[in-house]
Amino acid sequence: MPAGPTRMRREIGEIPATLERILEGAGEIEAAAAAVGRHAPRWITIAARGTSDHAAVYAQYLIETQLGIPTGLAKPSITTLYGARLEWQGGLLLAISQSGRSPDIVAVTEAAREGGALTIAITNDDDSPLAATAEWALRCRAGRELAVPATKTYVAQLAVVAALVGALRPASGLLGNLALLPDLLRTAENTAEQWLGGAGEQHLDRMAGADRALVVSRGYNLATALELALKLKETSGLFAEPYSSADLAHGPVILAGPGVPALAIRPDGPIGAEVDQAIEAIEQRGGHPIVVAGSDPLAATDALSLELDVPEMLTPLPFAVAGQLLVEAVARRRGVDPDAPPGLGKVTLTR
Amino acid sequence: MPAGPTRMRREIGEIPATLERILEGAGEIEAAAAAVGRHAPRWITIAARGTSDHAAVYAQYLIETQLGIPTGLAKPSITTLYGARLEWQGGLLLAISQSGRSPDIVAVTEAAREGGALTIAITNDDDSPLAATAEWALRCRAGRELAVPATKTYVAQLAVVAALVGALRPASGLLGNLALLPDLLRTAENTAEQWLGGAGEQHLDRMAGADRALVVSRGYNLATALELALKLKETSGLFAEPYSSADLAHGPVILAGPGVPALAIRPDGPIGAEVDQAIEAIEQRGGHPIVVAGSDPLAATDALSLELDVPEMLTPLPFAVAGQLLVEAVARRRGVDPDAPPGLGKVTLTR
Repeated sequence: MPAGPTRMRREIGEIPATLERILEGAGEIEAAAAAVGRHAPRWITIAARGTSDHAAVYAQYLIETQLGIPTGLAKPSITTLYGARLEWQGGLLLAISQSGRSPDIVAVTEAAREGGALTIAITNDDDSPLAATAEWALRCRAGRELAVPATKTYVAQLAVVAALVGALRPASGLLGNLALLPDLLRTAENTAEQWLGGAGEQHLDRMAGADRALVVSRGYNLATALELALKLKETSGLFAEPYSSADLAHGPVILAGPGVPALAIRPDGPIGAEVDQAIEAIEQRGGHPIVVAGSDPLAATDALSLELDVPEMLTPLPFAVAGQLLVEAVARRRGVDPDAPPGLGKVTLTR
Repeated sequence: MPAGPTRMRREIGEIPATLERILEGAGEIEAAAAAVGRHAPRWITIAARGTSDHAAVYAQYLIETQLGIPTGLAKPSITTLYGARLEWQGGLLLAISQSGRSPDIVAVTEAAREGGALTIAITNDDDSPLAATAEWALRCRAGRELAVPATKTYVAQLAVVAALVGALRPASGLLGNLALLPDLLRTAENTAEQWLGGAGEQHLDRMAGADRALVVSRGYNLATALELALKLKETSGLFAEPYSSADLAHGPVILAGPGVPALAIRPDGPIGAEVDQAIEAIEQRGGHPIVVAGSDPLAATDALSLELDVPEMLTPLPFAVAGQLLVEAVARRRGVDPDAPPGLGKVTLTR
């Protein structure tokens, strides 16, 4: 365990400044949005792996709700291992990769571009093969990320996606609200830190002593549940299973119980009510959900309430930051160095 | 525990006859395929939940590799909770649901049909709201399924998907090979039963004593991995995590270890070589993979080899049958009645 704050903790702290850089450099995002407007894609395919795949899930929700363009996630092996040639004409391929180096994501982007799709890459490395392959490369501007678990680059990917969709539909209000996020994220960081050292301690203990966990949300924050579950796996080796509250009801709710901590991401509004049903089902089975909430007054008196005053479609950014801090604290409480989980590298090359 | 074979076991035994009925009634599938040909969709969206969602993953692989039409999986809450209106014109919506009763799947189908998409439902209930909502309803012909874990309806969904794609592209050879499947599945059933009572017993013991597991494959059989992991959860309450071998490498491989049984579905050919890499990574961490294989001679001398003489794109059907038998045997060894896991119903209604 390193002395002082972990790299993961410091990199989470760099997120607000990263967002400020993305907003300052939004010209390249607006130019790409104009190209999307000209191309007028009939559908959008998103190619990504690991953490970036969760930014892709967020992108699917944001694109479909705000732009109405049918969107799906690519299965890269269809191109790389089966050698299939898709009818790319009329489509948009959005590739998301922190390193920009995974050969399968590069190969799908290349095939889509050759096939006539508009191609846009979101990556933290401007010099990567992915940035060179896509017609448009949008930068995450997060600086080099050294901890193996991606934190700042994930939230930066969400911000770039939101800025792109916001530029395509000004009426969404995304751009104006994105400008509020750096300060809002600083506040969320402080709120979460205080809670982790106070009311949240018993929850931390329970999570740190477990070998299995559930993570649940729905809608835009399904992405948050997916990402925090992966982070719990990568850092603490926890079998953390992410579910939408609807998919949880279709079987896996049976996994809940007293020895299985559950993390619930609960935005305000109708989605919050859906998540409440999952929280209730977990409690009925003897589980003790950790609730990270927007600003609703809640049944759970020991919830981490982030007092979010931002549209639900942007809450995955503050929820991710609070959740990353929780994950980092759980790892330290387990005596694990979250920066370098044994056996994982920073860049994964799959074909 | 019921006396005699469980319902789940008996329903697995009904799969070959179900496939025979689907093949005899293939006229309705050919008619739907002709409608797809006339509509010439630019992209395909598939809506499903739970087990049916895994048939949807299979459908994405089969459609993209054989027909080249970009395909993605719907997020139903975008329609039901966010009320978004997608640009359905020019698309095809394929809905898959055993019961045909989940309100969210029905709502997405309704929205797609109103929006101008061609709509096709695959369901085991002709009288369901879903069958009434879609323009074309294709039947699974599995008869009533009584065990809570879906087995025969899942394999029937795969068969209907394969017959539909086969009718759209005769050169794929899917239809001719589908005709071989009833007998091939009977053989696979016997082979798996013998293995479970012999060389597989130590694997069964290990899985029955665990509370966590990994399930891995890739390509067409990613669907098999997803489905068998869900079955292990539903019947035995195991935290069984499914991964493609590529996604496993992007972090979750860290979960492997001596106390974590791993089930690997290994088709022949290049995908088998990819799965071998995952098997090796799991073994390096002290895990003991259970390998269910096609017909390749393998390093794992105690593998369950199904001696499959069928194109890889149809192997998810026999692999599912062998895996379902394994899951059923694990549940009984744990002293659990797989037919009625506590707290789960047969039909799940989500919005």
